[in-house]
Amino acid sequence: MEGEQLNTDQTKTERTMNLYERVYDYINTRIVRGEWSAHDRLPSIRELARIMDVHRLTVFKAYQLLKNEQKVYVKDKSGYFVSPINREESSKDYDKIKASIQNNMLSDIQQLPAHFQFSQAIIDPNLLPNHFFSEYIKKVFDFYPKILGSYSPLQGDDELRKALAEYFFQTEHLYVSEDEVMITTGAQQAIDLITDFLIKPRDTILVERPTYSVAIDIFRQKEARIVPIDIHASGYDLERVEYLMRAHKPRLFYINPTFHNPTGYTLPAEQRKQLVDLAERYHCVLIDDDPFHDIFFDQKPPHPLFLYDTKGYVIYIRSFSKYISPGLRIAAVCCRPWIMKHLCRAKSLSDNGTPLLNQKIFLHYFFSSRMQSHLEKLRIALSVRKEIMEDVLSETDWQWESPKGGLNLWVKVPEPTQVASLFQRSIERSVSFVPGEYFDSERTNKSWIRLSYSYANEQEIKQGIKKLVSIYHDA
Amino acid sequence: MEGEQLNTDQTKTERTMNLYERVYDYINTRIVRGEWSAHDRLPSIRELARIMDVHRLTVFKAYQLLKNEQKVYVKDKSGYFVSPINREESSKDYDKIKASIQNNMLSDIQQLPAHFQFSQAIIDPNLLPNHFFSEYIKKVFDFYPKILGSYSPLQGDDELRKALAEYFFQTEHLYVSEDEVMITTGAQQAIDLITDFLIKPRDTILVERPTYSVAIDIFRQKEARIVPIDIHASGYDLERVEYLMRAHKPRLFYINPTFHNPTGYTLPAEQRKQLVDLAERYHCVLIDDDPFHDIFFDQKPPHPLFLYDTKGYVIYIRSFSKYISPGLRIAAVCCRPWIMKHLCRAKSLSDNGTPLLNQKIFLHYFFSSRMQSHLEKLRIALSVRKEIMEDVLSETDWQWESPKGGLNLWVKVPEPTQVASLFQRSIERSVSFVPGEYFDSERTNKSWIRLSYSYANEQEIKQGIKKLVSIYHDA
Repeated sequence: MEGEQLNTDQTKTERTMNLYERVYDYINTRIVRGEWSAHDRLPSIRELARIMDVHRLTVFKAYQLLKNEQKVYVKDKSGYFVSPINREESSKDYDKIKASIQNNMLSDIQQLPAHFQFSQAIIDPNLLPNHFFSEYIKKVFDFYPKILGSYSPLQGDDELRKALAEYFFQTEHLYVSEDEVMITTGAQQAIDLITDFLIKPRDTILVERPTYSVAIDIFRQKEARIVPIDIHASGYDLERVEYLMRAHKPRLFYINPTFHNPTGYTLPAEQRKQLVDLAERYHCVLIDDDPFHDIFFDQKPPHPLFLYDTKGYVIYIRSFSKYISPGLRIAAVCCRPWIMKHLCRAKSLSDNGTPLLNQKIFLHYFFSSRMQSHLEKLRIALSVRKEIMEDVLSETDWQWESPKGGLNLWVKVPEPTQVASLFQRSIERSVSFVPGEYFDSERTNKSWIRLSYSYANEQEIKQGIKKLVSIYHDA
Repeated sequence: MEGEQLNTDQTKTERTMNLYERVYDYINTRIVRGEWSAHDRLPSIRELARIMDVHRLTVFKAYQLLKNEQKVYVKDKSGYFVSPINREESSKDYDKIKASIQNNMLSDIQQLPAHFQFSQAIIDPNLLPNHFFSEYIKKVFDFYPKILGSYSPLQGDDELRKALAEYFFQTEHLYVSEDEVMITTGAQQAIDLITDFLIKPRDTILVERPTYSVAIDIFRQKEARIVPIDIHASGYDLERVEYLMRAHKPRLFYINPTFHNPTGYTLPAEQRKQLVDLAERYHCVLIDDDPFHDIFFDQKPPHPLFLYDTKGYVIYIRSFSKYISPGLRIAAVCCRPWIMKHLCRAKSLSDNGTPLLNQKIFLHYFFSSRMQSHLEKLRIALSVRKEIMEDVLSETDWQWESPKGGLNLWVKVPEPTQVASLFQRSIERSVSFVPGEYFDSERTNKSWIRLSYSYANEQEIKQGIKKLVSIYHDA
């Protein structure tokens, strides 16, 4: 019985895809291992179909792909043969770039090797308080000797949730009880869990344009319809938001209103209140994703939208991973009970609770006085890096709005420069950034780029941005 | 505009549900907080519908629920009033039991307070190597001073994956490369991620009867059709498996063949090979979930099914959380590239990598000599607890197969005893166990129970099981 015939219509395509990938792997692995060498004759389609118990068309498809990738070649009509290995490393990298652009995965871009690293919106590990952490960890083990023998409560450590609820009240005036706080393994998990229960295929989600590309990937996976709304330095056109809410009846609006990624824009307080009003009127859940809250340069940003929540439509995701410890992966989600109930259910199916050790370490560090002084130093270090980047760029005709916080510059490269071509030439010369289309659900953005000033050090920023500008002029 | 009218048909029911829950929360919160006290008149349906901008029927539904829960009462036709608080703590617990049975969530059962705790298949934290861990953690910080500043690679720490691939080869003769290993945050995340890409609504999944109930919950969430196959002390009826594979064309078969939860049964080696053959013939992916591998009492269990894999249909999930450190949440998934590719994509959307700290701590502890001696002691301690439990039970006419490893006894309580009633009376007297129906996708199992001997200590097992038996006789 053939795999291709085993299926309902809905899954037919997918299973067929899996089968030919399996055949592809089978052949490719043996070539890579050297079991089959250059110019060896490969098994015939008929033979392989029999060995692997699949349809001949499946084998044919696998061979076609291998042929397109120049891993095998066809001689006359006598069959498939292993190609000699003649591709250089550089062309492999180029394949990788091409593949990443096809998949539109930000993570692929970020994995490309580059000495001048401006594609990673993560903080230089040298700026993080690594060397202090071991002390806090010792403390955690003194306080909770059996910590590694215990699972965390599903919703998160009680002590941490209580402390964060109090902290949100003190710092942001949020009325939120510990029962309205969940600890997740990073903000991304929170977004994934929320959409798990809130979004069914063909539901509509409003997103900002541009927006965090991983969120788009998650929404696409849930088969949501994605409707973008432009974000400007002054916020959104709220009439347009209302029009879209009325016309598209979105189930949720995913926003990043504070030092927005990638633009750095911040939604003013009055717009925050109006947006919550709109969301309540149109029964649209707002996800306020807030990973850069404490990374401000002059003054604290406006309060989270949760402050204006009266009817339970706002979900607040505050993550700390970026500026305290990426290795811990701690985020907090605030929401009202009617949503928390579903979130708990989703979390129980997903991982049944974030590791307890990580929560306790975070708790003890976050509420220490050392943490405050770390944050102050970090803000200064990042604003210096930002200014260095802006200094070099000020000699060009590129345009950007100087951000008041966050990790990125969102820069418009004057037309008719092709960002795609600039990107390829930059990567070849070891300078990386993220082309704007990665932040655009419709991928129409062709003239903006995101330059992160958080990962490279001052020297690298100076040299790397100069290099980027000269690559630009070389076109 | 009414929320109820905002929707496509597909999501109408769900959104309506959310809306009435929101109204329910609104009222209930104010009662709980004491803003509205006993015998206060509550807002009318019309009024509340206006305030909350929902349909009156939605408010009506919320009031009905509050009335059923005796939180509000109706007086003549003059409206809704707050009920006086007159329910005792015990009745609240009973509500909780009832709710948990309705939801069929194992985690709810396990959260019920009980002095004699036989519902938790987790290991007594006193048996875990907690006090050694802090040393290893110090070591980890010495080795990797910047560990908390770094994200883990998506697929897991390279060093750990390499070490585990080597370990699986040495101990189980598995040919698996580090690229075929992924680290996940516990086995449950692995199951969730695999079904994310492998299962579409209405796909069929074979499961054992009985089986791990959380897996059933995950499969249900993906809207899979679940087809059970009985597991016996001698394994499966393979003809029946073949019949089901042919008739139902399952996309995957989820099994726990080693010290199976809840029964303790182990699939013999020859059946393992035959099962892999069948899976390959019918293009059915096998998930071998293996959390108790090292918890054997006499001899090591047979090798994982991955050993017999020739065509890439077996996924092996080995988790270590239970017997090393629940607080770390580390599991390894082995699978071939065609599946790993999809797994990486799912992981990238879910949490983008398991926290690095946890992986490094695990690495350093797992491959230490101390670990081996921990395991030896643990096996002895658990087999002693198992024997104590069996000793007490040997005075009854209950039936069970003595397990050769794992954490549970699977016990048949003679009819006509109602397990549901035994459970309720036991909980009231502070003895907990899990009724068999929680492990049955069709919930027809009415005469078996799972008793875990891993969490309670020797004294508690002796006393608690005696108490359970006397509750049974009191019926």
